[in-house]
Amino acid sequence: MTDAGVRALFEPKSVLLVGASEVKEKVGMASPALFRSVIYNMLRIYKGKTYVVDLSGKLRVAVKRFRDVPKKPDLGVLMLPPDLSLKHIRKFVNTGIKAIVAITGGYKPKQREEFIQATVKRGVRVLGPNTIMGVLNTANGLCTTFERGVMPKRGGIAVISQSGGVGATMLDWAWFYGIGISKFAFMGDKVDVDDADLINYLAKDKDTKVICIYMEGIEQGRRFVEAVRETVKHKPVCILKGGVTQEAARRALSHTASLAGQDEIFDAAFRQSGAIRVRDVEELFDAATALARQPPMLGNRVAIVSNVGGPAILAADAVYREGLTLAKLSNKIVKKITNKYPGVDVVNPIDTIADAKADRYEFILKQVLDDPNVDGVMVINMLKSCFLEPEDTKVVANVAKKFPKKPVVDVPIGGEDYMLIYDVLKDTKIPTYNLPDKAARALKALYLYGQIKQRAAA
Amino acid sequence: MTDAGVRALFEPKSVLLVGASEVKEKVGMASPALFRSVIYNMLRIYKGKTYVVDLSGKLRVAVKRFRDVPKKPDLGVLMLPPDLSLKHIRKFVNTGIKAIVAITGGYKPKQREEFIQATVKRGVRVLGPNTIMGVLNTANGLCTTFERGVMPKRGGIAVISQSGGVGATMLDWAWFYGIGISKFAFMGDKVDVDDADLINYLAKDKDTKVICIYMEGIEQGRRFVEAVRETVKHKPVCILKGGVTQEAARRALSHTASLAGQDEIFDAAFRQSGAIRVRDVEELFDAATALARQPPMLGNRVAIVSNVGGPAILAADAVYREGLTLAKLSNKIVKKITNKYPGVDVVNPIDTIADAKADRYEFILKQVLDDPNVDGVMVINMLKSCFLEPEDTKVVANVAKKFPKKPVVDVPIGGEDYMLIYDVLKDTKIPTYNLPDKAARALKALYLYGQIKQRAAA
Repeated sequence: MTDAGVRALFEPKSVLLVGASEVKEKVGMASPALFRSVIYNMLRIYKGKTYVVDLSGKLRVAVKRFRDVPKKPDLGVLMLPPDLSLKHIRKFVNTGIKAIVAITGGYKPKQREEFIQATVKRGVRVLGPNTIMGVLNTANGLCTTFERGVMPKRGGIAVISQSGGVGATMLDWAWFYGIGISKFAFMGDKVDVDDADLINYLAKDKDTKVICIYMEGIEQGRRFVEAVRETVKHKPVCILKGGVTQEAARRALSHTASLAGQDEIFDAAFRQSGAIRVRDVEELFDAATALARQPPMLGNRVAIVSNVGGPAILAADAVYREGLTLAKLSNKIVKKITNKYPGVDVVNPIDTIADAKADRYEFILKQVLDDPNVDGVMVINMLKSCFLEPEDTKVVANVAKKFPKKPVVDVPIGGEDYMLIYDVLKDTKIPTYNLPDKAARALKALYLYGQIKQRAAA
Repeated sequence: MTDAGVRALFEPKSVLLVGASEVKEKVGMASPALFRSVIYNMLRIYKGKTYVVDLSGKLRVAVKRFRDVPKKPDLGVLMLPPDLSLKHIRKFVNTGIKAIVAITGGYKPKQREEFIQATVKRGVRVLGPNTIMGVLNTANGLCTTFERGVMPKRGGIAVISQSGGVGATMLDWAWFYGIGISKFAFMGDKVDVDDADLINYLAKDKDTKVICIYMEGIEQGRRFVEAVRETVKHKPVCILKGGVTQEAARRALSHTASLAGQDEIFDAAFRQSGAIRVRDVEELFDAATALARQPPMLGNRVAIVSNVGGPAILAADAVYREGLTLAKLSNKIVKKITNKYPGVDVVNPIDTIADAKADRYEFILKQVLDDPNVDGVMVINMLKSCFLEPEDTKVVANVAKKFPKKPVVDVPIGGEDYMLIYDVLKDTKIPTYNLPDKAARALKALYLYGQIKQRAAA
């Protein structure tokens, strides 16, 4: 039971993938079609060496017998149905693997016990069984999912999911919307590696800036709370919990055998341990994107800088709805802006007026970030009905860089406007949101993490 | 002051567009560049006849003098700065126009009075001044905005906005995300035509199925409440209000001179009149899309049919969070489904299992919609990690058609999955959402409208 085993789940030098290309199962995770898709992903995306064993002996990229695997692999990926898996588990483990990603599920209690005896009890760490999608690591291209080519771009967000479906949703979301991911892990039945193991590993992973978790329930509550409590001293942890209501919780019991229990208990545990709780998948990624790229917000006073009036008013409403407040700008700063731009009414939210371009945004943003009364800034920039060009928004990233202790988030409000400005800012540290409400929730997460860090340091 | 004037704002047979292509203003809504863009939109998109008067006498598509306009136009679109506008207003009105869309703002109090005397007092209805974007009508292509080619597709949602910026956001959103729009009106300074006028017109407009309003404040509260109260007997009205908090309200005062007042008063007025209140632009369109295409939900009992377990649990949480409940399926229906698909655990939310295709969805949906215990259905269909193909989801629309009194909404949960299934369902009556949380809010709006209609009928 060493950390080296968990590390091998994400950072293997070589991988042994085992399946059967002519197994009779057409549905279920051992199906030949899915086996071929995982082979495709591993050979195309993974930068290490992949050995494939095809027990049916048909695939040209595979050998038929374990003894024909030329070198000792670190990680085993298991796609056999339970009976075949148990028949070959000794040979599989004897190849020298340190860890197993057990994709397939369906083990009966006795089979599961036999599986554990042959693996975990012999010092091999197991993720799963029933992980469905297994693991991804954007740094080395490890990709055991059967969704061909669905590999998110590299970034600071790690995701752990207890549910295959919610995990697949998050993977699809991250990949399609260009959200930067470090690692992805689908936990499945958790006969060995659990949330706490993964959190402890990701806490030390230098590619991971923030850890996101979807869970329905937890077995070893104390271990989990301890892992989170230690981790949040260095990086934030966000949690989306399914089965909040009694009725949904009952469903979770039959879904992942999770005892969801009273939601109040979870809520208290999350708060105690310093996790940030979110309500849905979008809020999870909205918060995580900000947490991965921006500093925590050390107070609750937000300044809004916008080139349109109405959206700034909606933004102000959203800021208060999230429990934050509008910063009262200091007189010195108000004077400086008013002197330079007499037409701008310097009340927070600041309306820079529809003809504002890069220079006006730059000057005003600089003043506002320099104001000791301001803890963080929400920038709104609209193209439609305004004179702004997408490239103008680069100044937001440039000015923010000079104030590394204050978070800045950007709202290119709307549809096409969002896409155009997202494209300009995507490789900077500025997170973008298509509505002020989402940006306000992201600032709230940055504020909560500021509180959590201060508490942890005290 | 006739309805014919308001009608002419949206359904003119011909339009007279007035500007000056060499006016000195470079910024502001009278700029020559914007004038050219409105000409572009009107000539390319509007199906009626557009006459252009260019006071600078430079543009080849325009005449220089009002007397050269060959025929009597219905609607005048005014893009002159205040001084020029007042200088020519008599000749403009004398062309015989019934209504004016006054795009440009900036009238001083005395100028404004003079403008009103020369227009409204002579029986011409005025939208604006300071409407910024004016009006759109997807049925006849009327498009007085200066965003070239930004014309949403035809559909049942009408939008009224008090703010240019929020209006432009909603236009960009609707256009970019393919939301079907009937009419769009930007109100500006409301010297004449106001919310109530527009609501009364849209209430009778056969293309409009639901009316969406962004407002910051209201002057003639009683008239507004009366207009909404009458309208909701036949079609729903959704309202997004800016300036909810005291601080944002103060900003609204300087923005559109709106006395936002205590939010509780607005909230009570909205509730009394039967308007459905939403929190942000996305929720506004999510609700409106459902209201425009689905029947109201006559009870609060929702069934969830999903091919993935975890997202169904999140959906159940969302249903309760919105104050709805999970329907308890009747024994007869449970038996029928269990007999046909013994592997499916028929508890609401129903997990059809990852290998479900069109036939299984079809059978189960039909049973569930037939169940008297069910008032509405949320379908979740995932492609990633499942066996479903995008085309399979057509059955959702086909089955729903047979139960015209129960609403059905669809959640192709995720990123790419959403786009793929949206594309299959976009021309059906089934609204689609990328997360169950948004679908639950849409069902909530359908439920609220059911309550409102029942109350109005009582």
